[in-house]
Amino acid sequence: MILPKFLIQIICGLFLLGPLQIIIAQTAWKEVAPGVWMSSVGTPDKHDLFNTADIKPVIEALAKMGSPDFPLPESDIYSEVIEGKTHLRFPLVVDEQLFGFGLNFKTVHQRGKILNLHVDHYGGIDNGRTHAPVPFYVSDKGYGVFINSARYLTVYAGSSVRKDSPEAPIPLDRNSDKNWTAQPYSDAVEILVPSPGVEIYVFAGPTILNAVQRFNLYSGGGCLPPRWGLGFTQRVPTLYTSSQVEDEAKMFAEKGFPLDYIGLEPGWQSKSYPCTLEWDKNRYPDQAAFIKTMRNMGIRLNLWTNPYISPSSAIYKEILPYCGSHTVWGGIVPDLMIPEAQNILLSHIENDQVNIGISGYKIDECDGYDNWLWPDVAKFPSGSSAEQTRQTYGLLLQKITTELYHSKNIRTYGLVRASNGGGSSFPYVIYNDYYSHRDFITALINSGFCGTLWTPEVRGSKTSEEWLRRMQTVCFSPMAMINAWADGTKPWSFPDVEKEVKEYALLRMQLIPYLYTEFARYHFEGTPPFRGMNLEPGFDADPTLELRNNNLGENPYNEAVLMESKDQYMTGEYLLVAPLFAGQISRTVILPKGKWYDFYTGNYAGNGEVINVTPGLGKIPVYVKDGGIIPMMPPLLHVPVTGEKTDLEIRHYGSSPGYYRLYDDDGETFNYEKGDYSWRDIRVLKGKKGKLSGTISKPEKGKPDNIGIVKWRYMSAE
Amino acid sequence: MILPKFLIQIICGLFLLGPLQIIIAQTAWKEVAPGVWMSSVGTPDKHDLFNTADIKPVIEALAKMGSPDFPLPESDIYSEVIEGKTHLRFPLVVDEQLFGFGLNFKTVHQRGKILNLHVDHYGGIDNGRTHAPVPFYVSDKGYGVFINSARYLTVYAGSSVRKDSPEAPIPLDRNSDKNWTAQPYSDAVEILVPSPGVEIYVFAGPTILNAVQRFNLYSGGGCLPPRWGLGFTQRVPTLYTSSQVEDEAKMFAEKGFPLDYIGLEPGWQSKSYPCTLEWDKNRYPDQAAFIKTMRNMGIRLNLWTNPYISPSSAIYKEILPYCGSHTVWGGIVPDLMIPEAQNILLSHIENDQVNIGISGYKIDECDGYDNWLWPDVAKFPSGSSAEQTRQTYGLLLQKITTELYHSKNIRTYGLVRASNGGGSSFPYVIYNDYYSHRDFITALINSGFCGTLWTPEVRGSKTSEEWLRRMQTVCFSPMAMINAWADGTKPWSFPDVEKEVKEYALLRMQLIPYLYTEFARYHFEGTPPFRGMNLEPGFDADPTLELRNNNLGENPYNEAVLMESKDQYMTGEYLLVAPLFAGQISRTVILPKGKWYDFYTGNYAGNGEVINVTPGLGKIPVYVKDGGIIPMMPPLLHVPVTGEKTDLEIRHYGSSPGYYRLYDDDGETFNYEKGDYSWRDIRVLKGKKGKLSGTISKPEKGKPDNIGIVKWRYMSAE
Repeated sequence: MILPKFLIQIICGLFLLGPLQIIIAQTAWKEVAPGVWMSSVGTPDKHDLFNTADIKPVIEALAKMGSPDFPLPESDIYSEVIEGKTHLRFPLVVDEQLFGFGLNFKTVHQRGKILNLHVDHYGGIDNGRTHAPVPFYVSDKGYGVFINSARYLTVYAGSSVRKDSPEAPIPLDRNSDKNWTAQPYSDAVEILVPSPGVEIYVFAGPTILNAVQRFNLYSGGGCLPPRWGLGFTQRVPTLYTSSQVEDEAKMFAEKGFPLDYIGLEPGWQSKSYPCTLEWDKNRYPDQAAFIKTMRNMGIRLNLWTNPYISPSSAIYKEILPYCGSHTVWGGIVPDLMIPEAQNILLSHIENDQVNIGISGYKIDECDGYDNWLWPDVAKFPSGSSAEQTRQTYGLLLQKITTELYHSKNIRTYGLVRASNGGGSSFPYVIYNDYYSHRDFITALINSGFCGTLWTPEVRGSKTSEEWLRRMQTVCFSPMAMINAWADGTKPWSFPDVEKEVKEYALLRMQLIPYLYTEFARYHFEGTPPFRGMNLEPGFDADPTLELRNNNLGENPYNEAVLMESKDQYMTGEYLLVAPLFAGQISRTVILPKGKWYDFYTGNYAGNGEVINVTPGLGKIPVYVKDGGIIPMMPPLLHVPVTGEKTDLEIRHYGSSPGYYRLYDDDGETFNYEKGDYSWRDIRVLKGKKGKLSGTISKPEKGKPDNIGIVKWRYMSAE
Repeated sequence: MILPKFLIQIICGLFLLGPLQIIIAQTAWKEVAPGVWMSSVGTPDKHDLFNTADIKPVIEALAKMGSPDFPLPESDIYSEVIEGKTHLRFPLVVDEQLFGFGLNFKTVHQRGKILNLHVDHYGGIDNGRTHAPVPFYVSDKGYGVFINSARYLTVYAGSSVRKDSPEAPIPLDRNSDKNWTAQPYSDAVEILVPSPGVEIYVFAGPTILNAVQRFNLYSGGGCLPPRWGLGFTQRVPTLYTSSQVEDEAKMFAEKGFPLDYIGLEPGWQSKSYPCTLEWDKNRYPDQAAFIKTMRNMGIRLNLWTNPYISPSSAIYKEILPYCGSHTVWGGIVPDLMIPEAQNILLSHIENDQVNIGISGYKIDECDGYDNWLWPDVAKFPSGSSAEQTRQTYGLLLQKITTELYHSKNIRTYGLVRASNGGGSSFPYVIYNDYYSHRDFITALINSGFCGTLWTPEVRGSKTSEEWLRRMQTVCFSPMAMINAWADGTKPWSFPDVEKEVKEYALLRMQLIPYLYTEFARYHFEGTPPFRGMNLEPGFDADPTLELRNNNLGENPYNEAVLMESKDQYMTGEYLLVAPLFAGQISRTVILPKGKWYDFYTGNYAGNGEVINVTPGLGKIPVYVKDGGIIPMMPPLLHVPVTGEKTDLEIRHYGSSPGYYRLYDDDGETFNYEKGDYSWRDIRVLKGKKGKLSGTISKPEKGKPDNIGIVKWRYMSAE
């Protein structure tokens, strides 16, 4: 039975009259876009994630994906409002695995987890406290679920067992039964939403990737960064002056290292922690001239800040009435749910920064680490709770700065320390200073499940081996960045691996046409450019139970852990990247079904199997799917500017025919929104005697055409 | 201005009409006992900690402590109910330090902490999730605050800064100011209670120990264990049979190791995880005879269980209607707020266990570890929320089993994995399997701040050094226990330190008169028998700020950590215990002001200073206060039974006169509640030529008199 919506509203209206217990046995679903359904339970909060991000669902792209049926048994979805809290339940089947629930760092498989989704600095445990605790999960059965709430949600992702469950497990005797397990079978995801109602969404498959795509498209599509955003970026030491920054750029050029933008850290501001958001006139005496000089060298500038306003800032008095009750490092906290607060902040950065050419921001410390944020007892003048403000602050900061740049028809690409559901269209990459290389890769995988981007930024390293291993992976990530704010490390700081580091920085540049296209697919199709193997067709994701150990003294509950793939990932459609970490000489790589080829040599590597590789320090293993096409440009030191023609080397791997659609536009403006872009068909076919030959279509008339000479390389035939 | 209570009630009554914001600027205080004040904010929950524990404040003892004034500036305490949540604020002054907030494992100083008080397995971080997250803190300014709530409280213990605070710190520029700190000064403890009201209590000093005493006395006084509870206890491997247990006891006797009770682990039950709470008739064919045999050997028995009922249990069907919606390991969860559930459970264990001589229980897995508990979406028939049930389940289990034994006029002493505020009168010791020796000592210190007992239980060890170091400390703790459930370790398992282990096990026995008296002081005066140095007069607790490091790359916020005393503690009035941990050869010991003497030799050790000691592996450093009197019995293998006369060696340390009141009673029943106990005055005075001489008073007529021959030892004069 599905309750009519008006009845739910009447029942929920009653709630205001007293602590009444409301039971809504099943939820009513409305298809809000093709393959996307929403149900409104109880009285949802006014301040939620989707309305904070002000999402604009890309209905046309969703329609193109077809109109599948509701992917879950409706009768198995329950919701109930009890004493001001919403209880939710979604079904699970026996061999189902879950992914998502935001930016986790240690695990990819989420079934069995208990999480409290809470925007926070990542503290070393996957417990829901992270920079982007997106309340979205996907199932390998091909659907996704999103809870549109800006509250701290408690999630039981297949851990709780109801005594009246038809699939309740039969209790076993631990004294005598070797099959006893500490985690009996659970048939549901249960979620506690600490508010008297919530909107819930379901996204159809049929594949797990389809569900992710629909979530991203419903959120407005993935972001399309400016092309330069995919070039190399260096963040300079915090107290650098403009002339030191110029020298840094010159050094990159002299040494032949690519560089597209430099990040200025706190010292660009007259005061920081809390921030004035104003230039320091000693370190940066003539900002406009400086920015111009840098741009002439092909370098853009990005500015660090946090959102806590110093009493020394010109906007302090004006913005004070729109701030929360508590301070952070003595800075006041703008209530960004209030338009006046947004306007004061944006006008301040617009005049002296954006209008003279600053390309974007790094928005720090909007995640918390608890101590460095307002407490949950803080009050905000908009009436939003401290909790809701915390869950959405990063999202809001992204939204308002994205809109500022959009209003000027200039794309931006920045960094942010907090995000949440609905933010996939914002051109921001999440980062932190947790700095575990291995866990950074797991985070990169998880970012692809939840509509966020993540950079495994490189800061320092204890050894040249670690340095090179980190540099190899950051070059296969959404932002190829060294963050030298604290120690001034340069790409060449470890001379014995300088050559290898440069090779990868330049390979990053060569891959720009491919990466840019994969970001266009993120934007237009919702496909995350960096993603885990579980989103890859043909990947055998059979979870294998493995006992952690059987020493009862050390592990009294004999906990079982799932084997999961969390150290290799896809970069776009064709590249499988399998990093090594400091101390590793060799590693295993799981190749999905289908033939795979070595990226560097074109040699056959395997098919649906686990291989062991010993690539040497100088190489990060990368594999290409059979028929894979990788369009590459020359190893330039800067990404081409608008209209600059670039030669192309189009690589083909394997023996099967290949097809790829290469994206192009001006790389800098939002004109693509008006159709000012091109997709060019690249085809590799087998001719007589099995000889491969490639063609690339011309762009449609009036569409961007930035390709110079095209060279073909059939990597597996060489 | 203090609002009259009726006005608060009227305002709070309005809450039920809608999402009204209620502001109660200041709270009204009522003195509920001498030196104890209560204020009722908003509409408190019906299910709270004090009413769950069913506390019976010891008014007479509180009255003896005097009638001090309210210890805080009333006008600086604020409470406010906003959208169904209670916001609380208590003032702090500049040089104030806080202690408490439950059983923390890594830290003693709590000022600056952010905690979410949540009953849970301890997960390695002091974040409020622990076995006993007691919402009680004490200040070194001499007062205590208790929040009588069974909710998950979020505590900002001097971390949050309000922009309108009169003491708001002046913001500093991190770019240029070396005094910049990541944690600006905060002038308040702020607490978020997620319910629309709460009772708050304030306990007077003037000393910090007085505030702890008042909290314990208001909770009903500390527990007085049976005397045998302070003897040695061994927990045997899980599947042991009755004859194996008998053999184990014989081995202890043969080898000359003391033993007073043995713990049977899951295998005593016919099925476990979930539990039948019924004997396994194969392993224990004749339980009554077995218990009798053991008792004849001087050994009592304690039974492990968890509270989750197996479908194979005889009470399953009867208790099912009184159980929660979810199962744990397939076992149903009795809703212990319902008297019927209590009665069914208690009758079940009463007949076949308590009535045939079982001395007590080890109540496992009532703390959580999240996965091994009901979820927060569970429902309970009493109407209590899953959250409230979780916060109080350990407390309830202690309460009902304590009452069962009390009804039979037999004392019990057991183990429990979860507790909370108000439980100090329950004779249960908390334990877990976190097993960090160092952190176990910090937990022992913190147990003394929050009305709980903790045992640093010994399980296994990697080396004989670790084994001996652990055994040395567990012998100076509330329960001297080896928990060999998983691996069958014995006290003599490391032959190269067997002699030293035995020495400490026997020293433990010698100390019983002293330890029993110190527990009596816990009961009658509220003074915790094991406690941190910060409760000791003359201890210099000046917190010294120490930067963790100044490498910005590794520690970007340049976090400062406070030096705190967390590895030495007081055992009773006179003994300062300073453990060493495996790998340590020497350590520093902070001696409070006043002269201190070596426990073993009587030699002078120091006065208000930090000393460095290298005691050798065979010794744990122990120091005695000048004038300290330690009554010791012979190194018996069993604690004396009721009426058994025991000789006494009374030791005196230092050169000052000494005074001690030695407690005695029958050691087994509650007859002490009817006055059936004695306090005997021990005095050591200086005679002519400075010669020390001691006297001990006779007990009052009709009071217990169990002392045989008294021998005096003036340790520092020998």
